[in-house]
Amino acid sequence: MYIAIAQINPTVGDLQGNIRKMIDYIRRARDEKADLIVFPEMSVTGYPPRDLLLYPEFIRRTHNIIETELQPEAYGISVILGAPWQEEGKGPLLNSALFLQEGRVVSVHHKVLLPNYDVFDEKRYFMPGNQCFLVDLHGKKVALTICEDIWNDKDYFERNRYSRNPVEELCQQGGELIVNISASPYHLGKLEERVHMLSSLSRKYGAGVIYVNQVGGNDELIFDGSSMAFSPQGEIVNRARPFGEELLYIGDDFVSLSHQTGKVETTEEFEEDMGWVYAALKLGLGDYLAKNGFHKVALGLSGGIDSAVVAAIAVDTVGPENVLGLIMPSPYSSQHSKKDAEHLGKNLGMQTRLISIETPFEAYINLLNENGEPLMDLAEENLQARIRGNILMYISNREGWMVLSPGNKSELAVGYTTLYGDMCGGVAVLADLPKMMVYSLANYINRQACTDIIPQSILHKVPSAELRPNQTDQDSLPPYEILDEILYYYIEKNKLASEITAMGYNADMVHDVIRKVDRAEYKRQQAPPGLRITCRAFGTGHRKPISKKVSGLDIDTKK
Amino acid sequence: MYIAIAQINPTVGDLQGNIRKMIDYIRRARDEKADLIVFPEMSVTGYPPRDLLLYPEFIRRTHNIIETELQPEAYGISVILGAPWQEEGKGPLLNSALFLQEGRVVSVHHKVLLPNYDVFDEKRYFMPGNQCFLVDLHGKKVALTICEDIWNDKDYFERNRYSRNPVEELCQQGGELIVNISASPYHLGKLEERVHMLSSLSRKYGAGVIYVNQVGGNDELIFDGSSMAFSPQGEIVNRARPFGEELLYIGDDFVSLSHQTGKVETTEEFEEDMGWVYAALKLGLGDYLAKNGFHKVALGLSGGIDSAVVAAIAVDTVGPENVLGLIMPSPYSSQHSKKDAEHLGKNLGMQTRLISIETPFEAYINLLNENGEPLMDLAEENLQARIRGNILMYISNREGWMVLSPGNKSELAVGYTTLYGDMCGGVAVLADLPKMMVYSLANYINRQACTDIIPQSILHKVPSAELRPNQTDQDSLPPYEILDEILYYYIEKNKLASEITAMGYNADMVHDVIRKVDRAEYKRQQAPPGLRITCRAFGTGHRKPISKKVSGLDIDTKK
Repeated sequence: MYIAIAQINPTVGDLQGNIRKMIDYIRRARDEKADLIVFPEMSVTGYPPRDLLLYPEFIRRTHNIIETELQPEAYGISVILGAPWQEEGKGPLLNSALFLQEGRVVSVHHKVLLPNYDVFDEKRYFMPGNQCFLVDLHGKKVALTICEDIWNDKDYFERNRYSRNPVEELCQQGGELIVNISASPYHLGKLEERVHMLSSLSRKYGAGVIYVNQVGGNDELIFDGSSMAFSPQGEIVNRARPFGEELLYIGDDFVSLSHQTGKVETTEEFEEDMGWVYAALKLGLGDYLAKNGFHKVALGLSGGIDSAVVAAIAVDTVGPENVLGLIMPSPYSSQHSKKDAEHLGKNLGMQTRLISIETPFEAYINLLNENGEPLMDLAEENLQARIRGNILMYISNREGWMVLSPGNKSELAVGYTTLYGDMCGGVAVLADLPKMMVYSLANYINRQACTDIIPQSILHKVPSAELRPNQTDQDSLPPYEILDEILYYYIEKNKLASEITAMGYNADMVHDVIRKVDRAEYKRQQAPPGLRITCRAFGTGHRKPISKKVSGLDIDTKK
Repeated sequence: MYIAIAQINPTVGDLQGNIRKMIDYIRRARDEKADLIVFPEMSVTGYPPRDLLLYPEFIRRTHNIIETELQPEAYGISVILGAPWQEEGKGPLLNSALFLQEGRVVSVHHKVLLPNYDVFDEKRYFMPGNQCFLVDLHGKKVALTICEDIWNDKDYFERNRYSRNPVEELCQQGGELIVNISASPYHLGKLEERVHMLSSLSRKYGAGVIYVNQVGGNDELIFDGSSMAFSPQGEIVNRARPFGEELLYIGDDFVSLSHQTGKVETTEEFEEDMGWVYAALKLGLGDYLAKNGFHKVALGLSGGIDSAVVAAIAVDTVGPENVLGLIMPSPYSSQHSKKDAEHLGKNLGMQTRLISIETPFEAYINLLNENGEPLMDLAEENLQARIRGNILMYISNREGWMVLSPGNKSELAVGYTTLYGDMCGGVAVLADLPKMMVYSLANYINRQACTDIIPQSILHKVPSAELRPNQTDQDSLPPYEILDEILYYYIEKNKLASEITAMGYNADMVHDVIRKVDRAEYKRQQAPPGLRITCRAFGTGHRKPISKKVSGLDIDTKK
């Protein structure tokens, strides 16, 4: 038996486009004499369709398009695909895998374990499936599961999130081959987790595992694909490339295939480096643009590291001719910042325009300050950032560039960013990268280019917003090395100040940082979507109240 | 037996403040010789605490403060309160009601039905309770339930969301009195729903019902309180005022109490008029300010209806001396708009400042347009709104006013609003009011004042953004009466274009409106929190993808 893994990049809600793509893959796999083609979870609607699932007519159309357009094309090959499912068009909605033979839906298998944490809201939409049963494919008993269904092995995980274990149930029924269709978003370290878990599962049950994951960027979420096949001995016998579509073939005789291709990989190879982050961001940005109908981007070049890294990724994503950098010095910008920005633009081959914000700044000061003299307070600092935002949006509105917001996770966390200023934009490329990771990524970019595409002077300057004379970030923040650690514990590890202080960080510093994070919640809730790279990004996975007071000596905000 | 209903307004996360408030209520109820005092759902943490619940230390502190501070005060009276609960500080989290006697936790009752739709994410945080059992209170068998637990009666609801029915289980065990602790957010029509359902429940089981609801604004959600007691005959025997704290007393002999107070109300009295919307917005705005440490607000006065209504509510909420209206005419503003804005400001007794945006506008045009001439395109329209946003934020940053965003739901829906312009602000007061409801509210305000506080000229002018000469909203939108209906079906009733067209609306118009709504999703995701008034507000209850394509002839966005 010969199995095709269809690692596709669907667009959420685009039933027509997704079905057409699936039919194309079906034809190609049939031409290659595959017996079965497997698509990812919710492949017809794209994942996550979110509240589109609440529209009954959307569900009816999904059923209808499968029946009228896909089924007539699904002959001569078996098909597994993912779709929302409703028995006879009414009753509860289920997240399902359809098994088709000769254009007929032979069986429908429902997701039993519904993730409802972090970015996932599946219990908002779906009822859990009840029954688990095998698929008979050319005499081979296939355990068909959907994403989360395989993530509850009691030998592998210390803590079990769910009481049921569909893989176990199916293997006890005699399952010989585990097929899992997924829409599993990427975060740094996720591939390694998957490889270890799937390898352990295949060894435990002595069954091959075929893991088919969606690829593509959908708003903040980036799906890496990285579909894989494991032999019953837990070896990876084939693997699709990450961050791109692929149609990959596997024999069900995993051992011989692995020997043929020599593709057995050890799990040690799966430590993801900055190359993974880079590729993820490039896909996330590219898809956000393409799926929203944009092909060119504009951003402000401050001469700092964040906008430099965003510009480099953008140039690689849409081409230098489609990237516009605006250099917008204010009265407080240093000469070297302007030069560094120009140098960077030249290195990247992108367009730049120099637009000094002095005249609008003066017009505001004349209008709003008594006797027209600057006071150099927060209002004026923010005003400079907002004038830059205005100019970017003006050029965007007039010429059709999508504006990219450059802020990193550390800045967004402590509110070291201007709402309606540098937070302007359609998408925030580095919003989930702590500042130290931005440096690592910059170094990676230069290493890959074998030249200092990002000038050393940008890499080594003292971080500053340059909104008043001699300002640096560290005037009001701890060094970024330490800040990023405190933020990691507070945001990703759910530790409160007392716990973080107990690890040895200075108590005043911890309290100050956490107070800043809490106070900046209102800004983050007005931020553009940020591409997710860690296991806890601001965005749909981070749901904090704005009006709140977490009391005790520990965190006492908003007095 | 004499029961005290403690309709309190907790602040999310403020364990200290909430416990202190609860102790104060306990003392007052004990002084009045009450046998039992009942607090709302999650009264110790405030509702919804959202991701604060993911911090183990937050849960530990909640338990700790109940034990060390509340329990020692809870003698001489029985207490029912709401809190997150974890057995022995580990294991799954539950949404629970604690029953205390003489300072001791006698029993803990867990919420069985966890809402996970609309604005609710309870399955993100909690495991459902399993067992339902009665409380013995002075020989009376009390069925203690939490919010959603009572909302699944199979005789009352056509469609049952859950398979279990805790009220039925408890009444079958012999429950004589149903106590429900809630944190049920308000939307227009909600009180009527509650009255009918609770009245039907008390009649069905021949049991009195005591319904204790949280009051207060927490970000977008407004809790009305409206705690009530029903006799076993389904009559309302006492009711707390909506939108305010109250400590209300009920005898368990409902009939006699109702005769004493003459308070029996028929369910016909519960049609909520604009007075309810007004009171809800006033509470929502007031609490958003207070809980975030603000006491004064600024907004732009355009001379239009939206900013006029927001100003009127703000003046009533924080007093005229704490409301600043900026009148910011552009080259395209009409003379009558400026006059209307000044007239309104005078009527309301608030401060106003006149700041023409001409000089910054010219500075931008000189800087950005070839030969400095305006083109009167979208870029320049938005620029005017953004200059106004800059000025508001500047004055906010310098002087400490919170900026109010005036946009209504219809505008936000179709994107007839400028991101980073009139969308600037800490909170959007009318964000969930369709335009026609804004008119109704304006008329209500004038009726209540017995004078045209909002000038007739504002009420009757043709809606216009005045960003270019002779512009009106209806140049690119259907009349608001029709627009609001189409939006209602698309946003609140989950109908797609084909279904709305089938109701008799012009197909081109429907397609155009829905296309606009879909395209404006990126704007709404960067909007400030909007106070929720309908059963489907933009915000946490509306989770749509930005990058999407809902295909078919029907809705074909983002080409």
